[in-house]
This record gives sequence, C-alpha cells and structure tokens, in this order.
Amino acid sequence: MPALLIFFSNTGPAKIPLAMLVVFVSAKLMAELFERLNQPGIVGEILAGVLIGPSVLGWMAPNEFLSALADLGAMFLLFRVGLEVKSSELMKVGGTATLVACSGVIVPFLMGWAILLLWGAPSHEAIFVGASMVATSVGITAQVLSAKGLLHTISSKIILAAAVIDDVLGLLVLAVVSSLTHGKLNVPELALTALMAVAFTVIVAKWGTHTMGRVVPHVNEKLRVAEAHFAFAMSLLFALSLMAVYTGVAAIVGAFLAGLAMAESTGERVRDLSRGVAELLVPFFLAGIGLHVDLSAFSRPATALLALAILAAAIVSKFIGCGLGAWSLGKTDALRVGVGMIPRGEVGMVVAQIGLGFGIIRQDVYGVVVFMSVASTIVAPPLIKIAYRKLLESGPVETAEEAFRLG
Amino acid sequence: MPALLIFFSNTGPAKIPLAMLVVFVSAKLMAELFERLNQPGIVGEILAGVLIGPSVLGWMAPNEFLSALADLGAMFLLFRVGLEVKSSELMKVGGTATLVACSGVIVPFLMGWAILLLWGAPSHEAIFVGASMVATSVGITAQVLSAKGLLHTISSKIILAAAVIDDVLGLLVLAVVSSLTHGKLNVPELALTALMAVAFTVIVAKWGTHTMGRVVPHVNEKLRVAEAHFAFAMSLLFALSLMAVYTGVAAIVGAFLAGLAMAESTGERVRDLSRGVAELLVPFFLAGIGLHVDLSAFSRPATALLALAILAAAIVSKFIGCGLGAWSLGKTDALRVGVGMIPRGEVGMVVAQIGLGFGIIRQDVYGVVVFMSVASTIVAPPLIKIAYRKLLESGPVETAEEAFRLG
Repeated sequence: MPALLIFFSNTGPAKIPLAMLVVFVSAKLMAELFERLNQPGIVGEILAGVLIGPSVLGWMAPNEFLSALADLGAMFLLFRVGLEVKSSELMKVGGTATLVACSGVIVPFLMGWAILLLWGAPSHEAIFVGASMVATSVGITAQVLSAKGLLHTISSKIILAAAVIDDVLGLLVLAVVSSLTHGKLNVPELALTALMAVAFTVIVAKWGTHTMGRVVPHVNEKLRVAEAHFAFAMSLLFALSLMAVYTGVAAIVGAFLAGLAMAESTGERVRDLSRGVAELLVPFFLAGIGLHVDLSAFSRPATALLALAILAAAIVSKFIGCGLGAWSLGKTDALRVGVGMIPRGEVGMVVAQIGLGFGIIRQDVYGVVVFMSVASTIVAPPLIKIAYRKLLESGPVETAEEAFRLG
Repeated sequence: MPALLIFFSNTGPAKIPLAMLVVFVSAKLMAELFERLNQPGIVGEILAGVLIGPSVLGWMAPNEFLSALADLGAMFLLFRVGLEVKSSELMKVGGTATLVACSGVIVPFLMGWAILLLWGAPSHEAIFVGASMVATSVGITAQVLSAKGLLHTISSKIILAAAVIDDVLGLLVLAVVSSLTHGKLNVPELALTALMAVAFTVIVAKWGTHTMGRVVPHVNEKLRVAEAHFAFAMSLLFALSLMAVYTGVAAIVGAFLAGLAMAESTGERVRDLSRGVAELLVPFFLAGIGLHVDLSAFSRPATALLALAILAAAIVSKFIGCGLGAWSLGKTDALRVGVGMIPRGEVGMVVAQIGLGFGIIRQDVYGVVVFMSVASTIVAPPLIKIAYRKLLESGPVETAEEAFRLG
C-alpha cells in the first residue's frame, strides 16, 4: 500500500468499519457453525469473542467503542424481550420469582465465599468473589428463550421476573459488601438505596403499561416527525435505562421495563425496526462477553483448579438455589428455572472489576471470576435447550404450552 | 442522591444511556418543531447538535462514542439510499455526473482560495481552505430526497452519482494539496491512489448488482442462522465500507455501493431491519455535525466577516459549478442539481482538521471552515424543498416525474 494510503487509514476512518466487520462477521460465522452442529448459535457468538480476543487470535481487544455497542446491544435485547411479555403476567408470578431470586442469591454467595476461604484467600476477597457469583445475566437466557419462541411459558416468566429481582438484590449485596470491606456499614443509606431501586422497578412495572396505553395513541396521532412511534419508544428506552442506572440497578433492567411498558401499545412496525437494531448489536454484546476471557489465569495449576471449582459452584449453586425456589411448580419447571438462571455474563465481571479497583480482588482471582462468568454463560444455552426439549419437540409452542399446562 | 449512588453512576454505566437520551431526544424534538414550522426536520436535527453542543447549552461535547455512532449513522443512511437506486441507472447518467462533479470541484476550490488570499492568509492556508470547500456531503441531500420520495428523479440520480465522483476527486485534491504544502508531489503515487479509488468504485458499481443477484439466493437457501439475509447485508456493508477507506475514499461511499449492489436482490424484510438501525443512528450523524460548531470564531469581526464570505462562496460556487455541469438537462434540473450539491457537512471538517494537524490552518480559520460546513448543510434542505416544489405539489412522485419528463 502506498505511504499516502497508510497515512489516510491511520487518521482513523478505518477503525469503525474494521471493528464492525471483524466482530459481526466472526460472530455470525461461528453462530452458523454452531447451528450446523445442532448447538445454540448464541454459544458460537460468545466463543467468536474468545477466538478473536487477546487470548487466542488477538485480532481485537475490549475497547470503549466495542463495549458501548455491547451495552446498547444488551439494552435492545432486553427491550425486545420486554415487548413480548405482559407485566401483569410477571406480577402474577412475583411471589415465586422472589423466592427463586432470594435462594438463587444466597446459595451462590455462600458457595463462592466458602471455596475461596478453603483455597486460602483473605476473607474480604472471598466475600467479593461470593458477591460476583450472585447476579444472573438474564440477556443470554432471554435470547435463547426468545429465539425458540418460549417466552410465554410459565418458567420463562419466572426467570425474567426473578432476574429483575435478582438484579436489585445484587445491587444490595454489592453495596453491603463494598461497605463492609471498607469497614463501615451505613444502614440508612443502604435502606434508601434499596427503597429507590425497588420503588423504581415496581412503579414502572405496575403502572407503565397503563400509562403507555394512554400516551401512545396521542404520539401516533399528534406528532409529525417520521416514525414518531419508534422515536418515542427509543426515547422511553433510553430514559428508563438511565433512570435505572441512577436508582442503582442495571441499564438493561430499565430497558426491559421500557419494553414491558410498551408491550401492549406497540405494533409490528416498531417491533420490526427495533429488531433491526437488535440483530445488528446483539452480536456485539455476545462476542463482547467472550472478548474479556483471559486464559493466562490458567498458567498456574492452583488458579486453574480454583477456576474449575468456582465454575462448578456457579452452575450448581444457581441450579439448586433457583430450582428449589421454583419447586412449587413441579420438577420440570423447577429444572427449567434452575438452568435458566445459570448465566452470569457481564454482571459477574462488573462486580469483580469493582473488587479489583478496590485492591481487594487480586489479578489472578479476577481472571477466575471472568472465566466463571463467560463459561457459565456458554454452558447454559445447551442446558436450556435440554430442559425445554419436550416443548421444543411438540410443535407450535403456544399450543404445546397450553396442552402441557392443562395436562 | 446518596453518596453510594453517585459512586455507582460515576463508574460509568450512566454514560451510554445518558448520551443516547440527550442526543436522540433533542434531535427528535427539534425535528418535530421544524416540521410544525413547515421546515425540513433534518435542519432541526442538525441545529439540535448546535444547541446541546459546547457553543450554546454545553450539555454534550463531541466524543469518541458519539462520533462512532455518527459514522455508523452516515453509513446506514447511504446504505439505505443505495438500496433505492439501480446502479445501471446511475451508470447511464455517468457522463453528466462527471461534468457536474468536476465543475463542482473547480469553482468552489478557486473561490475559497481567492477569498483567503484577499483576506491576507498565507498561500498554503488558502489552498487548504479551498480544498475543504470541494467535497459535497451527500448524506444530507440524500436524506431529504429519500424522505420526500424523490430518489427516482433524474436530478437525484445525477446528484448521487456526482457525489460519489466528487468524493474521489476530493481525495485527489486533498492528496495533491497535502503533498504540495509539504513541498513534494509524488506523481506515480498519486496516480496509483487515483487508480485504486476509481477501480474500486467502478468495479463495485458495475458488477456488484450482478454478483449479488447470484450470491443472495444461496444465502437465503443455505444459511441456518436467523435473519441470514440481513446478516449478509450487514457484512457486505462493513466490508465495502472498509475497502472504501483502504482505497482512499470515504466509508460512506462503500456503504452506498453496498446498498447499490444489493438493491435488486433485497426484499422488504432487510429494508425494514436496516431502516430501524438508520432511524436510530441517523440523528447522531445529523446532531453530530451541529455539535462541532464553535461560535467563538465569531468573536473577532474580521473572522466573522471571513466566515460569512466563505459561507456565501460555498453556496454560490457549488450552485453555479454543479448547475452549469448539469445545464444540458434544462434549467429546472440544473437548478435542482445545483442546490442538491451544496451541503458540505462532515467532509469539509475532515479536510480542515488535517490542515489543522499539519499546522497549516490556524484555529480561527478552522472555526470558519467548520461554520461553513455546518451552515451550508443547514441552508441546503429548504432550498432543495423549493427546487423540487413542483414535483412535491403534484401528487404521487413517480407519476408526477413521468408526466414532468414527458411534458
């Protein structure tokens, strides 16, 4: 290439299309490969991130642009899932979901904490690793369930509701743990945090649908700007995501609530348009999880052993904790809820990063938590497919579900 | 807000939803306002950027994330415009378009250069400012024409074809100017640059449609991944955008060529999905242009005068240069082509930035070029509406156009 051309490409215009091309195409190729192997395409997309990431090929490293696209991808994924669900139906399963979320927080925390102590880690580090095992990354499960048309089953609704509650609990665990490791626990502040997060979530879930049912017809009628309904949906999505962050929960919880609020007042047009954005950006969310894997954590046998133990604990603890919480639904659905809550994805990494920033989690233990987050996310989709096998085999899902619930 | 919450929002999760909310909502609100004033919504979206930008409210400053979204928005805008046009029809108007592009490059360059010399600027600076006035930002015109359903008129096709040629010419002018101001002009290298840019553009425009006509049916048939056709379209979009950058032209030219190549083999589904992405991201492209405005250039009367002179020259020179090039089509269409080529948008800014980086353009003159780029972009849409008034008033456009061309 002549020097002049190198000069032009070095000024940066190649950066965006290059990153888009490498991440998107490798994610889609791996998804295609996995579909052909009869495995979930989503696992292929996450592994694409591992493959092109620093540990293997080194084509891409996590950067600000890619992580922004990943965040947006997760928001659109959850927004679209919210659009498919009625909030009244989530409210109905609220009791069971709370039970699932609580036992699904306690069991993983205790197992992670105990394993680290047995491994000989300082107690603060053990507490932080326990905290990083608490929160489910609902995006992965939601994507699998949505792709297979399974969002309308009772177990799916419990998984979604429990994941939202789980996020609030995760916030509180992180707040308590951060305060404890700094030696001071401010109880009034903690109570206020809890109150704000719960109030935001409950208010939007409870009155969002009704409010949107009254507002949306005016949007379509009165606004002159093109695709006004879509523009309004996007505005609500970003506004609730931002409010979610301000009240302490994850942006994707706000995105999910935005979808939920608009589920009954949104037509095909807005669904198709937002689907386009999701189709483009979700691969960045999935591959972005894989990009963070750092296999150098496995260079020391002791660390490798810890990583495997923590991974096993992450899987077993959510399966048991959440499965027990959903026991009242019968074995089949309890099993589905149990596997559906396994993926930790980006949530575990965020907690570990905060611990790393405090100097409480050491670099190799951080690598272990990242490995656990990614591996639990990769393991879950095939397990979900197995747990829902009966429904998937028996033809059109809604009918099958009806038959199943009645029989 | 309790300290704990501030801590969480400072770790960064608010950044993405906040930026999305502020830019998107202000762009859409201003678009709505302008539509109600019977002005083009696109102007409102650009002015929204000026309004929230550093010069007025200071809510947002240009940053890497926003500029990446703006780049993507421009790519999707041009991709979608490409989807609406047949490359064979662009080829047919190639002769006139080349004439339009050439005279539309020469006249603005000479006027910009002369004004700077009269103003007493050093000759290298004058040359660079001339170069920054050369290239049209086709995105703005394309958006206006596409929103009004005018892409199928003969003048629209000439504008699109001329803008692509114009981009190649702009590359050459920038290369020559950069070499000249550094004292050495490497003619063989320059010829190679020209050859690569022209070869890429012509090859894709000429054989892209045919190739896609053979490839796309296999994509739909053989791939198992969901929305395979859309995934393929996105891959082509990013691949051609990247190749465009490598051959020296703008990424959006590659995006336009990708749309062109797929125009005849793409159904409604892919159009709807990519429309969703465009609806989300184009406001970031438009507001992003406005964000760059720095009104401090107007603090000195001499600079303010220069800015107004350069703006007037930018408008008049493209209007005359391109209008003359299209004179063979008759007065009405020549006028349409003339106003359609006025917007400079992001292209002028890029050239000025390079000049700034070389230390050839001074800060205040840089501000003048940015002002010219943004203001010419804001002035154009109302002029385009006026130039196409006859067609817009006479009902369904395709029929009106037919009647018009026959009558």
